[in-house]
Amino acid sequence: MKPAVGLIGLGLMGKPMGANLLKAGFPLTVWNRTRAKTEDLARQGAKVAGSPREAAASSDVLLTIVSDPPALEEILWGASGALEGLRRGSIYIDSSTVAPSLARRIAKACAERGVEFLDAPVTGGTWGAEKGELVFMVGGSAETLKHVEPVLGAMGKRWFHLGPHGAGQTVKLAMNMILALQVDALAEALALVTSAGVAPERLVEVMQSSMARSPLLDIKAPMILARNYAPSFPLRLMHKDLGLALDLANQLGVPLPATAVAREIYNAVKGSAKEDLDYAAVARFWQKA
Amino acid sequence: MKPAVGLIGLGLMGKPMGANLLKAGFPLTVWNRTRAKTEDLARQGAKVAGSPREAAASSDVLLTIVSDPPALEEILWGASGALEGLRRGSIYIDSSTVAPSLARRIAKACAERGVEFLDAPVTGGTWGAEKGELVFMVGGSAETLKHVEPVLGAMGKRWFHLGPHGAGQTVKLAMNMILALQVDALAEALALVTSAGVAPERLVEVMQSSMARSPLLDIKAPMILARNYAPSFPLRLMHKDLGLALDLANQLGVPLPATAVAREIYNAVKGSAKEDLDYAAVARFWQKA
Repeated sequence: MKPAVGLIGLGLMGKPMGANLLKAGFPLTVWNRTRAKTEDLARQGAKVAGSPREAAASSDVLLTIVSDPPALEEILWGASGALEGLRRGSIYIDSSTVAPSLARRIAKACAERGVEFLDAPVTGGTWGAEKGELVFMVGGSAETLKHVEPVLGAMGKRWFHLGPHGAGQTVKLAMNMILALQVDALAEALALVTSAGVAPERLVEVMQSSMARSPLLDIKAPMILARNYAPSFPLRLMHKDLGLALDLANQLGVPLPATAVAREIYNAVKGSAKEDLDYAAVARFWQKA
Repeated sequence: MKPAVGLIGLGLMGKPMGANLLKAGFPLTVWNRTRAKTEDLARQGAKVAGSPREAAASSDVLLTIVSDPPALEEILWGASGALEGLRRGSIYIDSSTVAPSLARRIAKACAERGVEFLDAPVTGGTWGAEKGELVFMVGGSAETLKHVEPVLGAMGKRWFHLGPHGAGQTVKLAMNMILALQVDALAEALALVTSAGVAPERLVEVMQSSMARSPLLDIKAPMILARNYAPSFPLRLMHKDLGLALDLANQLGVPLPATAVAREIYNAVKGSAKEDLDYAAVARFWQKA
């Protein structure tokens, strides 16, 4: 029999992940701060819990995916929090992107309750979540990972065991640094050629024949050229992740000069945006006119 | 009959480009500041000119590819310079990476002599030069480009007509900004995960499953992991190109914050290097220990 799965956080990522769990036949209980967001999955067969605690208590495997560390801490340690609901012997997987130190704190709290924890942030965006092609970056016990592979396999195509608790988050922050800097580099280069009188489409065309071609370019360049920033991965979350990467780097004494500057550019765009934007909107730094 | 081609500059790029011109059957005359570097191509059938002027005078199509603007200016306007040798009706192609403004100055000097000029810098590295798979970024007349397509086709697989004189250089500088920032981003991210206790190979492995995968990653990541920086595209030239991009941006009033910071990191590594290094050695900024 398939393990009962709990899912907390039905945002851009969580909702399609939940739909894929249901499609794969896992009994699913969901919880979301804004209850209206549970309706679609309830219609598809999910049970709706009254609190994070209740969602945890009904699960063999609990999965959380929320937008930032404060949201995760509230769900775990807040009123009717998930931690006190977790059953001995169950497994808790967090797919949010948070600091590695928070992942280690959660692992410790879980261990005290006889619960195995994995930090397992994802990459692949909403597109990957919808297609069930996410990639999980996992920190924690390899044996625990083995147990939940069928659950991850319903939502993703690959998972990497990267080391002890926190290693998944470390690699995720490093990945997002790279994505953020690559899109910023593209935006800087497009601003330069445009100001010099060359159509930005031409640079993209040349890049497609260069060593710098990538799926990221395929997805983000058209958004920048069309100035269409409907969020796939929201800029506010990329800005948050750059902050987490810089926090980690400063704890470790590693200088990240270009990342620090990119964070300020994302910060400027975030500060001037009225609506929710994809992080490709970093190009707005140069598209003010 | 195939046009006579002159080639000035037999460095990491020029030498394999010359070999491919010979293989394709073009009569070739070469010149290089250090004469010893002409020997291999002479053995393969090239004539060796005594000066840039002589090389230009014997050519229907002259091609130059040297390391920086001062070297190019010396070849063109120095003693026995190429400009005074160029024959009316001939075509001059510069594949060096220089400022767009220098390309326009050369175009003007050529026009005064009845010579058609193209700025046509290349991307693809020594690997692309050897395989004959370079990509040419061309500024100038589309009709002139049509005339030299067989010559470019001996050395490259694609060429893009990007606009009037200088447009090729503008796009090339934008391309190199992107390459420089992507490799710096990779180096920053590898430094972070390494300091956090995660093997850097694991980040690369995850990246290969992500939207950030690229041929650039395939080539540069192994160099950084092995700390093997034998130059394919030398760091000193990437540093120069970042300077040219920033010069252009400052003429145009375009801020390039991350590019400016990346240039300083390349600058630091260049300043501390004793040997010639590939630009992947930007990772040495974090690999001092």
